[in-house]
Amino acid sequence: MTERSWWGWGTTDRALGDDECVAAAAGLPGLPARPRPVPGIPDLPAPRIDAPASVPVSTDPVLRASHTYGKAYRDVVRALAGDLRGAPDAVGCPRTEAEVVQLLDWAGSAGVAVVPYGGGSSVVGGVEFRGDGPWLSLDLTALDRVLEVDRVSRAARIQGGALGPVLEDQLRPHGLTLRHFPQSFEFSTLGGWLATRAGGHYATLHTHIDDLVESMRVVTPIGVSESWRLPGSGAGPSPDRMFLGSEGTLGVITEAWMRLQDRPRFKASASVGFPDMATAIAAVRAISQAALYPANCRLLDPGEATLSGASSSGPVLVLGVESAAHPVDGRLTELLDLARDGGGTVAPSSGGGRDDAADAWRSTFLRMPYVRDGLARMSAIVETFETACTWDRAEELYATVSAEVGAAVEQVTGAPGLVNCRFTHVYPDGPAPYFTVIACGRPGSELAMWDDVKVAAMEVLGRLGATITHHHAVGRDHRRGYDRQRPEPFAVALRAAKAALDPAGILNPGVLIDPV
Amino acid sequence: MTERSWWGWGTTDRALGDDECVAAAAGLPGLPARPRPVPGIPDLPAPRIDAPASVPVSTDPVLRASHTYGKAYRDVVRALAGDLRGAPDAVGCPRTEAEVVQLLDWAGSAGVAVVPYGGGSSVVGGVEFRGDGPWLSLDLTALDRVLEVDRVSRAARIQGGALGPVLEDQLRPHGLTLRHFPQSFEFSTLGGWLATRAGGHYATLHTHIDDLVESMRVVTPIGVSESWRLPGSGAGPSPDRMFLGSEGTLGVITEAWMRLQDRPRFKASASVGFPDMATAIAAVRAISQAALYPANCRLLDPGEATLSGASSSGPVLVLGVESAAHPVDGRLTELLDLARDGGGTVAPSSGGGRDDAADAWRSTFLRMPYVRDGLARMSAIVETFETACTWDRAEELYATVSAEVGAAVEQVTGAPGLVNCRFTHVYPDGPAPYFTVIACGRPGSELAMWDDVKVAAMEVLGRLGATITHHHAVGRDHRRGYDRQRPEPFAVALRAAKAALDPAGILNPGVLIDPV
Repeated sequence: MTERSWWGWGTTDRALGDDECVAAAAGLPGLPARPRPVPGIPDLPAPRIDAPASVPVSTDPVLRASHTYGKAYRDVVRALAGDLRGAPDAVGCPRTEAEVVQLLDWAGSAGVAVVPYGGGSSVVGGVEFRGDGPWLSLDLTALDRVLEVDRVSRAARIQGGALGPVLEDQLRPHGLTLRHFPQSFEFSTLGGWLATRAGGHYATLHTHIDDLVESMRVVTPIGVSESWRLPGSGAGPSPDRMFLGSEGTLGVITEAWMRLQDRPRFKASASVGFPDMATAIAAVRAISQAALYPANCRLLDPGEATLSGASSSGPVLVLGVESAAHPVDGRLTELLDLARDGGGTVAPSSGGGRDDAADAWRSTFLRMPYVRDGLARMSAIVETFETACTWDRAEELYATVSAEVGAAVEQVTGAPGLVNCRFTHVYPDGPAPYFTVIACGRPGSELAMWDDVKVAAMEVLGRLGATITHHHAVGRDHRRGYDRQRPEPFAVALRAAKAALDPAGILNPGVLIDPV
Repeated sequence: MTERSWWGWGTTDRALGDDECVAAAAGLPGLPARPRPVPGIPDLPAPRIDAPASVPVSTDPVLRASHTYGKAYRDVVRALAGDLRGAPDAVGCPRTEAEVVQLLDWAGSAGVAVVPYGGGSSVVGGVEFRGDGPWLSLDLTALDRVLEVDRVSRAARIQGGALGPVLEDQLRPHGLTLRHFPQSFEFSTLGGWLATRAGGHYATLHTHIDDLVESMRVVTPIGVSESWRLPGSGAGPSPDRMFLGSEGTLGVITEAWMRLQDRPRFKASASVGFPDMATAIAAVRAISQAALYPANCRLLDPGEATLSGASSSGPVLVLGVESAAHPVDGRLTELLDLARDGGGTVAPSSGGGRDDAADAWRSTFLRMPYVRDGLARMSAIVETFETACTWDRAEELYATVSAEVGAAVEQVTGAPGLVNCRFTHVYPDGPAPYFTVIACGRPGSELAMWDDVKVAAMEVLGRLGATITHHHAVGRDHRRGYDRQRPEPFAVALRAAKAALDPAGILNPGVLIDPV
């Protein structure tokens, strides 16, 4: 039986040991010789709420501690420092939708803020609370069942609290899969993906979970909203699109009918090296505009390629195609032809249908959050941010963000750090660049140092007209960038919609919008 | 120089002559021997508004007459009957966005309702007014320019009032195309497509205009909303998705950055016959779930196949593939293999790369609205309605709607009529069936007869959980079905958003929602 970490990513058995922490930080000079110890759970403030016995809440300290933060770098640093002053007064543990209704009713009447919590993997301050009053973390993971499968339409009705592996296990006997695999897959839920417009497995076409939604069921404080199961509709503005990305401010997503895929039977992948980023970006653009829709189309810049072990000599493009219906070798050939036409060199494969660079990448990808926690214990700064922009600005964005965030790192830490980039998703009109920052922090100052770097990152993204987030969501940490990006009349409309659906203003206050 | 018809579809030179009207109605017994004459424009009520000279409005009778209705069957019948009591008091003719702002400001202060008007092709009562007070039809077709082209990202900034051919003419020199070809293409605008979530050329994948939007600029009564140009974003609920489908109730769309396509260089098409609809539906479903994304995938039921001249012996599936980048014959072969596996018989092609059934279909498709007008002059009832549902209900929906609407036609008219169906768009989880009704009306009673049939159609769609509209929009005519379909909390949120953006309630009153 594995145990979830209360302070860091995933399960405790997979956390890095002290020696592994030291080894992971080997390339970073000037850090402490040994990792900060993982503290025990500190004493928590006394709960300020007094719910009737019929309301399913718990004040168990371990539960409260593990629901204090999400899983951003700054969350891990605060937890490691033993700072749990902001812990929820209680954790709501509804087992049914009726209990969700009951909890919202009680919280509304008691004036208790409610922060919906799925897997708790937010990296943007989406599941914590920064107000002064009492608050409840609403853990939805008991609502974890696949309720209905429609094999003919390839769709299933799934409860919002189902973690990735939990819902895939229930779909597997039907030969179906949602095929939504964010990095957080193991520790995030369907409802969380929908509430945050999560980005998934597919690098092209159906990149966000949004496109996989057939209908949604959302508990709002004024009633349950349920849209009809439809493959497409033109009846007014889409109700689902209002709740997608609402990040718990408008309601709690308890169920959704999701579009599924047959399990892929045919797969092929390859990696392509490029002499420089300008050439690579132009080639990826050509691929993105050819309507070939690779499942994977991940461009690693030189730093990222080196870090992941995919290459040490320049940018690498990892391409993958898959299909449940027909062989994909022809499509991979067309993709590789485009890559070669664009100046790429296709890497020799190791045989067996898998590709070395792709394998190296995947293994690094899944282990990265644990390594991040180990580095955080070494007082390193390790965080990511991501964006999207149109192709006409892509090269400038890559260069400018890399340079300016690099300069901010050097200014803040007194030494150069790593600022790597990969394109996680690409569209015909632009890429979604994803940046990783690794630098040496000073013990006790890591948080302030990262926050300064983040301000610089938000500033340059906003100045270049790139989105504040492609799939990490807004939460509380991105408010500055989001407020700049969001059209003001839309803000007015959203505030009005929020006030109408959540008149007591209890739902995730501080996320997306401020109260009227 | 062609002239737009004030009472019917398109241009006057293409309207059916009297003898052609008679010929078109040859298969319909019991109709008058000669068509109703097209009346002159009747005297219109005196305008009840008095705009300052600086506000660009016109009270020209021809302009007012032609802006009284959209182009639904019921609009044509009312116009032919000389019923223009509901004519707009004036037509606004802004030449710039600043003039749109000026017009909305004036209308808000004067308490004049404003109905945005693009090409005026609404078939759901979206561009008329059913209130008592004065109203302005806001004609946006002077805002018709492509303002900017980004060849690298394949996108263009286009004004909302550009008619289909007008914007395509401006994109052609760049080798680009929006490739959005609704049946109304010649006489509808980009802004209208966006406001109504129009369905276009592509039968799969990017079916609605929604997916082609990069950003939008919307004049609301409280200010201009402009979203950032982004290929994708996860920053809160999508602002664009709130305005898409808002049907002029939240603001006036003056510009949008649209995703474009390279002009297709490779095309292939074929048609496939099926023994019966159950077999055909199952085969189309398999095709829709194979990720092959045909540009055309139109299933005609036996009646529709006969009417269009595609076949007289059963259902016909018209398949088409296209690409700007690579040959498509392999993809067509894969599609035809699936069709054959599903019990279809591929029709022999006439050579030259084009297919007879596809050609027959296209020609009928473009001429249909003119024939509809000719039949209306013969007192026939000719109208369409469309929907979408998941595959598990598709066969039942087809059978039940055909039967119940057929029974309603017979009850209302005293004789059987035609109720044909085609699937215009298909998704992995369901089709969008499109029904055509043709029956004999009684002169003077056609409107009441059709309205009774429409009530029956809306009832059965709602009962079966199929959307009230896949791409025709809601307008005023679909309110009964839309109100049933729309989740109540979403209605509450939409009303609140509307009240916040349009505090004077001047924008297209009666469409989508009633005032608070």
